[in-house]
This record gives sequence, structure tokens and C-alpha cells, in this order.
Amino acid sequence: MADNRPGVQSPHPRVADIDAESFDYATYAWQDILVSLDASTGIATVHLHRPAKANAYTSAMAFSLQFAFELFDVDPRVKVAILTGTGKTFCVGADLSMGFRKSATYAQQHRDEGGVCSLAILRCRKPTIAAVNGTAVGIGMTMILACDFRLVTNNAKVGIPFTKRGIAMEAASSFLLPRLVGVTKALDIILTGDIRSPSDPSFAALWTRAPYPTADDVLDATRKLAHQLATQNSTISMALCKLQIWRQAQSPEHAHLLESQAYWDCAQTDAKEGVDSFFEKRDPKFKGTLNDLERFAVYPWWTQADVQGWVRRAPPPPSKL
Amino acid sequence: MADNRPGVQSPHPRVADIDAESFDYATYAWQDILVSLDASTGIATVHLHRPAKANAYTSAMAFSLQFAFELFDVDPRVKVAILTGTGKTFCVGADLSMGFRKSATYAQQHRDEGGVCSLAILRCRKPTIAAVNGTAVGIGMTMILACDFRLVTNNAKVGIPFTKRGIAMEAASSFLLPRLVGVTKALDIILTGDIRSPSDPSFAALWTRAPYPTADDVLDATRKLAHQLATQNSTISMALCKLQIWRQAQSPEHAHLLESQAYWDCAQTDAKEGVDSFFEKRDPKFKGTLNDLERFAVYPWWTQADVQGWVRRAPPPPSKL
Amino acid sequence: MADNRPGVQSPHPRVADIDAESFDYATYAWQDILVSLDASTGIATVHLHRPAKANAYTSAMAFSLQFAFELFDVDPRVKVAILTGTGKTFCVGADLSMGFRKSATYAQQHRDEGGVCSLAILRCRKPTIAAVNGTAVGIGMTMILACDFRLVTNNAKVGIPFTKRGIAMEAASSFLLPRLVGVTKALDIILTGDIRSPSDPSFAALWTRAPYPTADDVLDATRKLAHQLATQNSTISMALCKLQIWRQAQSPEHAHLLESQAYWDCAQTDAKEGVDSFFEKRDPKFKGTLNDLERFAVYPWWTQADVQGWVRRAPPPPSKL
Repeated sequence: MADNRPGVQSPHPRVADIDAESFDYATYAWQDILVSLDASTGIATVHLHRPAKANAYTSAMAFSLQFAFELFDVDPRVKVAILTGTGKTFCVGADLSMGFRKSATYAQQHRDEGGVCSLAILRCRKPTIAAVNGTAVGIGMTMILACDFRLVTNNAKVGIPFTKRGIAMEAASSFLLPRLVGVTKALDIILTGDIRSPSDPSFAALWTRAPYPTADDVLDATRKLAHQLATQNSTISMALCKLQIWRQAQSPEHAHLLESQAYWDCAQTDAKEGVDSFFEKRDPKFKGTLNDLERFAVYPWWTQADVQGWVRRAPPPPSKL
Repeated sequence: MADNRPGVQSPHPRVADIDAESFDYATYAWQDILVSLDASTGIATVHLHRPAKANAYTSAMAFSLQFAFELFDVDPRVKVAILTGTGKTFCVGADLSMGFRKSATYAQQHRDEGGVCSLAILRCRKPTIAAVNGTAVGIGMTMILACDFRLVTNNAKVGIPFTKRGIAMEAASSFLLPRLVGVTKALDIILTGDIRSPSDPSFAALWTRAPYPTADDVLDATRKLAHQLATQNSTISMALCKLQIWRQAQSPEHAHLLESQAYWDCAQTDAKEGVDSFFEKRDPKFKGTLNDLERFAVYPWWTQADVQGWVRRAPPPPSKL
Repeated sequence: MADNRPGVQSPHPRVADIDAESFDYATYAWQDILVSLDASTGIATVHLHRPAKANAYTSAMAFSLQFAFELFDVDPRVKVAILTGTGKTFCVGADLSMGFRKSATYAQQHRDEGGVCSLAILRCRKPTIAAVNGTAVGIGMTMILACDFRLVTNNAKVGIPFTKRGIAMEAASSFLLPRLVGVTKALDIILTGDIRSPSDPSFAALWTRAPYPTADDVLDATRKLAHQLATQNSTISMALCKLQIWRQAQSPEHAHLLESQAYWDCAQTDAKEGVDSFFEKRDPKFKGTLNDLERFAVYPWWTQADVQGWVRRAPPPPSKL
């Protein structure tokens, strides 16, 4: 995997340099998050963990989240990942007491630390579930846009108040938000910057399920969903489906060509167990892994832009400001 | 029209080789479907027709559907097409007793038989209505994504359980589904693979109208809608609008340029009757045909990918699996 | 700014040739619209103004709207723009008594006068609010698709009956409509051409807020929203956010790169006041202008298609019709 980290150096090892399969999540020195893995189900859980600060987002948290989701992506023990917050809040947003960090001398070299986290979540080929246990604001909202499922409690307040802070869209939200909720709602959320209830019509389309009364309800529903995905569904199929939606073909014809190739190689891997279990009226036990997926003729079908770019180049052009 | 058929040979003639305008739908030897044309209204109706097998999808059905919708596209007698199922079920999905068919020796040569049908429906320039009279699962769901209208009864169960069968998105659904319902709902439908009620919030956005109590209600509403489209609206306008939505310009400026050219040639064809009938307070009688559309300066504005590709080439690269 | 006007010459001056900052909106000779600017709040208001004709759209109105929104874009006094109608109707559509205008001898030279207005609204980098005070049909609907917010009264009737007039999508609606409401609803609205209530499920997704009982409610809510945007939010941030949504990056990685650069330059401009006001628990007073935005390293990140094209070339190819 290419090192797609931003200009500011991550304190964590490169995933390519370690043995993900034997990584000990429980004892690793995470910063501002906690991570655990239930080996019996394959469910990994991340808690945003700055309880005294309502889990306000920091650079340290950003790099920890990046490292965790990069690990989940390649660790065959992980089937599904949950992202939630310690305490009564999910995340109140960036810790502004640190100021607006600039990791570079020039605009072209800067890499947004929200995007560091969001891209890692989006690129994780296992299903990801945001269990929004309480208020989520700013980066607390935009980081969950990269998750495949978003469950929330109605006790939370939510919003993306960037226009009230003098900044613009971050964490790849300019790509993600309009695709999740459509442009009408995206413009309302982002141009007003309002903090509202999760049930507000403009926010309602963000949630995979209708908002739950309490945080406990959110966590219960999340665990059931995670268990279903981890134990009943094909890892190869879920990875392909997720990528087919986020790395879309440019036309129905191109989609047909990509899907056809993916189908042919599925038939060489998990599809036989899918059919057999159907006729034997039993739950399937899929054995396929992402190592198998990487040998599919069609994979990968998209060209992934290099987010390092100017970071490595010197000298960058002078700023116009 | 280029022959865009997959590697497996269709048993039907090429539409370009026959006289569509005098084709006898009632007596043709369709396989696993029935087709009729009401010459007085221009409404063609296709029934998925394997009543003993809950209309399970077969290769024979795929090629029959492809041939039928290719005919509808060019037959000037056809104004609108309806797709429904014989009996109490719409379609329970692929007939798995046939196994997962692979039409080729290599991934690059395989062409998904769901896409064969979906592309033919999508490319039909007449409006298409799915009248989902009962349960629709798997390809029974993905084939209707290519229709312009989807009406359903609440007596049905619906779902796309590919992740439970070890396969991935097919029938161009990776292109269609997120555009129809947005990414949040698309990921829920496809990653869980759940079979649910049509009224489930994640599925609700798929239906053009709120689900109807019974299959008869669906068919009544479908007939009324089809009659309205076939008798009151311009065939040229509907074809252009449908294509403007599915073969989208890349920017608002490009959209403006394409729309401007389309408008100019509309003014040479059906627009005069549109204005005249408005001022004379009567229903319009549009005379324009798709033959006229094909002479529009702007038509076609998109480049259609060749889905034959590797099928014609030899030798393809060796598989990695 | 390039002159992006269509083949028919606008009767108004080029914005680049006048001093927008001292333009007198109240005394200018607008045609078929009225324009005012509240200098104390920065809220500009446009009324479609042909009260005897239910504000039916004319060429004169199109060019007035284009000129008004081009001015709003560059006039630093304007923070937010409102578009509404004089009287009980918003706009009944194009004034068909003028016939279907063709501004050119050839399809390639024609420029749709709906697009003239829509592109000017869309390119206005200040937030725009459509206050739909009554019935909106045809171009009366498609022009508001380019606004960032759409508020409506349930007393209105709405619809886009192009398929009943023999024309196709215009005013960049083929680009805008599916992005605002998704393809399922867009196809229903456009292929049926039905005139319905704003609360109809297919139209409901168009409105930023649930439809209001009366036109007065719409105008009250619009004024409150405009005041909030004009006085509390950063002009730079709102312009960037709007552009990030309409001029989208092609992948999450490209979005990350654009967002990162935008963030870096925001930190040089309005972000400091955003953070300071947050900690001082007061409303921010942002000083940044679009002149500052134009000096951002990332701006502009998209290539804007030249809508003049064939208008300037001679001779165009002969028509096929």
C-alpha cells in the first residue's frame, strides 16, 4: 500500500511494515482513542476517548484513527468496525484550543487532518458502522460520513458549523455529503452551519436507521448489525459492493463490464458456498479473504489519486495570499 | 445499432435485421416471458413467465427481455412499456439450480446476464414502468432499477441478498442504485442483503409512488400512468428527458449547451403542436418519432462504451485466480 | 469575467465594464423584474415582475435576471440574494405567446434563455434563496433549481410540463434536478410533466423546509434565513462550500486535496475570527471578501466550459433536420 499520509508525520508505524494479523490492539499505545477486537466475531470497536474534553478531535486522534482503520483494512481477523465515543458525547468537533493547525508552509503542502481520518475509514474495505452515542459537531459529523452505516440517538445535537468558523468543507465531506443526502439537504446543512436535532428533515437522510431514543439503543442496534454482517455475509462481497458504490463506473456500460468481471471471479471464490448454503437451507460459512479479492482480474479498477503530491515536491509555488 | 450482446449468443435475431414495425409480439416464440402490444394505445406489456418457478430468472429470460426491449426501442408503434410478473410473485431472483453461469473462460470475457437485461431496458428510449406485483429479490430487484417508474404492492418482500450469496452488484446496479436512492440507503440495502417490506425506509425511496395495498392496485395505477404517458406526452420529449438524466452532462455549462441544441431541434418538431394545443386548450397530438430525434444535431451526445470488448479479442490475459 | 452570454445580445452592460460596488439597483431600468438592496444587512431581493401576466418568463426577464445575479456575485455589498415573485404567483412559465424563440439559425448556435438565468444564479457565489410565493411552472420551477435554498407555500401548484409541450429539459435542469432530488423523483417529475402540490412525494425533496401554509410564512422564513446567513456566516466560507458542492472533485482523494488547500488559505483569512469569536462567546464579524477568495491558491479548481462555443464560429455545420 502506498503511504498516503499527509505532510505531518504520523507517529505510528506503516501498516505495510508490521504483521497486522498478530497486532495486539488492546496493548498498543493509541492516542486519544481506545481500540478493541472481539476475536470470536471479528468485530473491532474504536472509542473516541478524551472524556474530559467531550472527545474533541486532535492531531493525535487523527493519526490514531488513520492507523486503526488502515489496520482493520488488512487484518484478516477484522470483519466489521464500529466507531463510537466514550461517555455521553460522540465528538464536539476539533479542539480549537490548539488553533487551526497548518502542517505546511504552503497551501499546496497542507493536508487536512479530517481527511486523514475520513480517507482511512473510506478505504477500509470492511463495513464500518458509526454508533453516534451523543452530540456530534464539525469533524465529529464529517468523520462519520465515510462510514457505511450511521446510527444515532435523538438525544444528540448534530451540525457542521464551518461557515460560522470561517473555514470550508473538510474530511472529504465535499465529496461524501451530497452523495449521502442529495444536494438540497447538503446545502442546507453546510451553508447554515446550524446545530439541530438528528431528526431534522435535512439531517434525517444521513442516518441508516431512524434515530434511537437513547445511546444504549444505538449501541444495541449497532452490535446486532455488526454481528449480522460479520457472521453471515461474504467479506469479499461486502468489499466489492462497497467499492462498487464509492469507486463508481462512469456509465451503465462501464458498470456492466466491471460487474461482469467481478462476478466471474466471485464464482471462483465465495459464490459456490453462497449457492450451496442456500440449497442446504443453512447459514453460509464464507472462506474468501481480501487476499483473494486482490487477485481478481478486475481489482482495482480505479486509479487512486496520490494525496502526497506537492508534499514531496520542492519548491512549491509561492502563495497568492 | 451495434450488437452489444455478451459472449453467450442470444437465440434471437438482431433487431437491425428485422422489420420492427411489423413484428408480431403475440406469436413470437419468447422464452420464459410473454409479450403483448395494445396497438390502440401503444402500450407494450412484458410478463416474466415461469409461474411454476416464481418467475426465477434464467439465461433464456435474459435474452428474451433483451430482445423485447430492443424491439420496443425501435418499434414506432410502442409508446410505453410495462414490466410485470405472471402470478403472485414478480421474480424471486436468479434460478440458482442452474448454478452460477460463466459464459466465458476468462473474467474479461464474461458478461453478466443481469446486465444484458438492464442495459436493454435502460437503452429503451420509451418510458418503462415496473409493476412489481409481488415479491422481488436479487435480479428481480436489480432489473427494475433500469425502469423509469417503479410501482409496488406492500404485499411483496424485497431485497438484494448478494452479500449472502458470495457475489457482488450486477445488472448495472452499481451505477443505478446509488443514483436512485442515494448512497446511505444503497449501502444499507446492498451490504446487509436484507429482505424487507417495500415500505422499509431504505427501500421506500426506490418507489415512484407509495406502495399500494394489492397487486391489482399496482396494475391499475400502472395502466393509468402508461395511458397518460402514451397518449398525452411527446415521444421525442420523453426520450430526450430520459437520456438527459441518464447520459448526463459533466457540468452545468455542458448541460446548458446540450439542452440548447436539443431545444432548437424540438422547436422544429413537436414544440409547435405543444404550443398550439396549449392555446387551443386541447390535448396535444404529437407526431414526432425517434427517427426525427436521430436527426437532431445534438444526438447522440454521449459515447457509449462497447460492452463487447474482450469478448472479440484473443487471447485474453491469463486469470490471476 | 468572460462574457458567457448567448447568441442573442443582452441589452445590459457587461458587469466587468461597470463599478458594481456603487451600482444603484433601485433606479436601474430593469425589464420585467424589480431589484432592491438592503445596505444594512446585505440582502438583495429580486421580484419577478409582470403582475398582469402571472410573471410569465420573457427574454427581457432572462437578461435582467442574468445581469442582476452577475452583479450580486461581484458586488461586495451583497451578502445574500432572494428570488421571489410579485403578487400571488411565482411564475407560470415561459410566455408562450412569444412562441418558442430561436436565437440562431443553427442548433449549435442557439442558447436556451432558461440557462442564461440558471447559470447566472448558480455562478453567483453568494447564497441564493428562492421564496416561492405561489404557483411555479416550467421555467418558473427550473430557475429555482439553481438556488441554494427553496422555500414554498402549499398554496402553490408546481410542475415541469415540458413533455406536454414537445420540448426537453432546459435551464441546466438536466444537471440540477437529479442532484437535488435523486433520479427516481426526477424521472417522475419530468416524464409525467404533472402539475401537483409542493407536498407531493416526488416534489417534496426539492424544498429546503417543509412547505409553509401561506406566502407570508414563506417570506418571513426567507427573511430570517437570509438575515442569519448575511450577518453570522463567513462570505468566503459560504462561497467555498457552495462551490465545493457544485464543482465537485472527482474522487474522495481529489476532494481531500482541494479541501486541504482551501483550509490553509481560510486559516490566513476568516478562520482566525471564527476561532476567536468562539472562545469569546460572541458572534463573529468576518471581514473576508471574494477578492480574498480569488487569491486562494486552490481557486478556481475547475475548468468552466465556454458556453459561447459555436456562437462565435462560422459557418456551423448544416442542420440534419
